[in-house]
Amino acid sequence: MRVITIGREFGSGGRELGKRLAEYVGFAYYDDEILTAMAQNSGLAESYISSIVEQSTIMPYPISYGKTFLFSNVSTDNHWKIIQSQNDVLKDLARKSDCVLVGRCADAILEELNPMNIFVYASMESKVARCRVKAPAGENLTDKELVKKIRDVEKKRERYYVAVTDRKWGSKESYHLCINTSGKVIKNLIPAVAAYCNAWFAQAGM
Amino acid sequence: MRVITIGREFGSGGRELGKRLAEYVGFAYYDDEILTAMAQNSGLAESYISSIVEQSTIMPYPISYGKTFLFSNVSTDNHWKIIQSQNDVLKDLARKSDCVLVGRCADAILEELNPMNIFVYASMESKVARCRVKAPAGENLTDKELVKKIRDVEKKRERYYVAVTDRKWGSKESYHLCINTSGKVIKNLIPAVAAYCNAWFAQAGM
Repeated sequence: MRVITIGREFGSGGRELGKRLAEYVGFAYYDDEILTAMAQNSGLAESYISSIVEQSTIMPYPISYGKTFLFSNVSTDNHWKIIQSQNDVLKDLARKSDCVLVGRCADAILEELNPMNIFVYASMESKVARCRVKAPAGENLTDKELVKKIRDVEKKRERYYVAVTDRKWGSKESYHLCINTSGKVIKNLIPAVAAYCNAWFAQAGM
Repeated sequence: MRVITIGREFGSGGRELGKRLAEYVGFAYYDDEILTAMAQNSGLAESYISSIVEQSTIMPYPISYGKTFLFSNVSTDNHWKIIQSQNDVLKDLARKSDCVLVGRCADAILEELNPMNIFVYASMESKVARCRVKAPAGENLTDKELVKKIRDVEKKRERYYVAVTDRKWGSKESYHLCINTSGKVIKNLIPAVAAYCNAWFAQAGM
């Protein structure tokens, strides 16, 4: 199976890129399906799992995971169960069909499947502009507040990534291709990114 | 004019990628021509210019260039003349025709032409392997010596880049696309990279 993972800065258009890329190359794209499957596996509510996976931060006592520690504000047992469940679900999905997975440290968790790992990033100016366009109705943040929001989300992603993997989040060494989307229309980049993925998989004999 | 600049780690295959890409998209590729033109402009020997441009390091007293200082072990006058000459030559060449330029801080020097900037990198293991294949006959370095050589060359490139530009060498933020060539045959990546460049230029209205 061929797996493409997408890491991304908040507001870089990484999720859109992943979705469109999956559609273009005919791979499965998983997003909410992951939470649903995790809820079924663990018996916990989707919203609860989502909050833990997304927010993973301060834990009263650390649990060892991989080479490092993961902190959360939920009980160790549940936390462990949820992380474990997410990993199992990711592995199940990736073995079912060619797929694109956005976030969730899929690059590290699925390492044995030799995924192609893309990181999507952009200038802060471009991320702020993209966040404005995609903001939920009623959200009326100033530029300063938006920059803070972007930094906060990225800090969380970084912390989660560093806790689960032994790699550096957003550092080019952790990825096979890094795409700067500053000022670009994602849609128009897709055929070329798809061509690159195909060339990459072909060389990997996949 | 469309300009593609290639920054690269030593042993990543960046020069080969630049050369092949230029050929594939039908852009000019400049390399030794730059030194020849610089020699003509400055009246200095090519070998002398080459040594300065490549080695640019310790200077008895600093000269201000752009936002920072550049150090060299040659006289300030000559040094200044050579850097100036290289910049002029790069600008002349880039205005003549669509082109691919490898190294020489071309991304920063040609900023006003809105170049597409690519950075090529690879794992140390892969760089060592590539250096072995391309080593001049008679070079018989151990792995450890080769790693040291790679690090030394990259340190020089970084120093030169940081002196001439106000950006971080090899940091993804300084580039539009970062390509990890670890274990890859460069040739087979070219059509996809070319497609990406075309999409990029199209969106820039070029």
